[in-house]
Amino acid sequence: MSWREGRLSVLDQTLLPGEERWLDLHGAADTTEAIRRLAVRGAPLIGIAAGYGLALEVARDPAGLEPAAALLAAARPTAVNLGWAVGRVAAAARAGGAEAARAEAEAIHAEEDAAAAALAVHGAALLAGRRRILTHCNTGALATGGQGSALGVIAELARLNDVEVLACETRPLLQGARLTAWELERLEIPFALLVDAAAAGLIRRGEVDAVIVGCDRVAANGDVANKVGTYAHALAANAAGIPFVVAGPTSSIDGDLPSGDGIVIEERDADEVRRAGGALLGLPDVAVRNPAFDVTPAALVTALVTERGIAAPPGAGSIAALLAAPVTV
Amino acid sequence: MSWREGRLSVLDQTLLPGEERWLDLHGAADTTEAIRRLAVRGAPLIGIAAGYGLALEVARDPAGLEPAAALLAAARPTAVNLGWAVGRVAAAARAGGAEAARAEAEAIHAEEDAAAAALAVHGAALLAGRRRILTHCNTGALATGGQGSALGVIAELARLNDVEVLACETRPLLQGARLTAWELERLEIPFALLVDAAAAGLIRRGEVDAVIVGCDRVAANGDVANKVGTYAHALAANAAGIPFVVAGPTSSIDGDLPSGDGIVIEERDADEVRRAGGALLGLPDVAVRNPAFDVTPAALVTALVTERGIAAPPGAGSIAALLAAPVTV
Repeated sequence: MSWREGRLSVLDQTLLPGEERWLDLHGAADTTEAIRRLAVRGAPLIGIAAGYGLALEVARDPAGLEPAAALLAAARPTAVNLGWAVGRVAAAARAGGAEAARAEAEAIHAEEDAAAAALAVHGAALLAGRRRILTHCNTGALATGGQGSALGVIAELARLNDVEVLACETRPLLQGARLTAWELERLEIPFALLVDAAAAGLIRRGEVDAVIVGCDRVAANGDVANKVGTYAHALAANAAGIPFVVAGPTSSIDGDLPSGDGIVIEERDADEVRRAGGALLGLPDVAVRNPAFDVTPAALVTALVTERGIAAPPGAGSIAALLAAPVTV
Repeated sequence: MSWREGRLSVLDQTLLPGEERWLDLHGAADTTEAIRRLAVRGAPLIGIAAGYGLALEVARDPAGLEPAAALLAAARPTAVNLGWAVGRVAAAARAGGAEAARAEAEAIHAEEDAAAAALAVHGAALLAGRRRILTHCNTGALATGGQGSALGVIAELARLNDVEVLACETRPLLQGARLTAWELERLEIPFALLVDAAAAGLIRRGEVDAVIVGCDRVAANGDVANKVGTYAHALAANAAGIPFVVAGPTSSIDGDLPSGDGIVIEERDADEVRRAGGALLGLPDVAVRNPAFDVTPAALVTALVTERGIAAPPGAGSIAALLAAPVTV
């Protein structure tokens, strides 16, 4: 994503790695559409992009603030960052108009960049010495402000010791195969791609030293909603006695939600499952279940790594303490 | 698969559901190739097909018995049925020549058909009253003699009560999306397809009443090697307190193997992961891990359903008792 002189551009992630095409976004409608179809994705990044989209909308038409905010906040249901960022920019616009909205969107962006850098340092210190790291979905610079959440930790860890990444392809939309692989190549970190279903068996066979993933919404008790497939990795990591680590900025924590039971899980279009890479995989009209996320209970999470430090294990007390702490690096 | 008047034909499962093309097989070399490239697949079926392939080879050239048997037995490493069937037909050929080899291959086929019918009845009785059944890979008529293993149980259960199947697509080669979906449509059993990674979350949310899968090799202690992804489903089923059931003929039990730790896990070609449905999914030359199977420890298996009855839970004692029992229906 790029924000320069009041112009918002996003790299269309649906086309990667085959094509690097940038899209200019001008307001709430096209930003919402880009978020819905995953041209822009990743919990932190959709918050940042939505903040800018709302600021652009308010600059064009101050009267459009409330419907634009509602539209953007509802673009996707699961990640908490979206409503959080839209809420902040909307409040700024109500108080100070377009100038204040733009300043707030830029502040969110800067905060999220700084959070990514800080949490990467915390996470790398936690995992120091571990070499074979399994991750899921895409949590790098493409998904966040700055250098990423889980993938940012991995990149930082690779400065401390040898790292080999096992990257799950992340069906249906293959964010691992398309985006994480592309980012790891650029980072020059050795990795192998695997189907999601292969992760648990490799963990059981002792071929993984730690699992680290991002998060779309963390409840006050530490339950974590993240890309579908995360929960099975957590079960396998726990059975094998290796760390299962969740990384994300505190903007991904929903302090108003007592537990993961209340998290709305987005169900997406059936064709995402029926197809891959443009190809029809089986029957064209087959019935499909396509939840985009799952919930991992806090009891399976070894540590929640944020820019404010680490909650290990995450729970109501450790998370509240984290939110009260200053950002530390 | 079809065996008529000494001619062996197999439906090329790599082309389903798009095309139904039958291949004639004439001996050890082409049968081995068909097994390796998964034109013929499923632990029971590759045993049956290999038995016929060896019988055809011996009829053409009795001197070719030993190299042909070695070739066929090594076509794939994980399923025990393959070596078991080849061993039986080779022993018959050594004792009685081509006629005896053919009779032994036909006996194996008939036994496996009967086993599938018997285990379906046992499994359906075990699961009676359960409606939402999750399964993995393909375990129907395409994978076995007769009506299948896990899918045979599901078909039998559908005669007892309403059934809705959740069929995992089974990356990388999509036996669920391509083959199980095709069979369930023909069986007129309602189902929905899902990515493998979605199974655990749906189980946790209470949307599944039981999980049933097939098996490629069961160790004497009840550990189960099956299609990669099985282990994660077992972890999720156990965490949710629903039955995790394994179905297969006793020919899938390897009584010589003390535990699953000794099971050789086949690693297959990287392009299976890089592609799906013919399409390239990400980077063309990415490094890949592609284990085709995983091992589920016996402690996670609620019941092992065979043609001789049910071992619940499976363990050294219950499995030995099963193998000593007559076939019951």
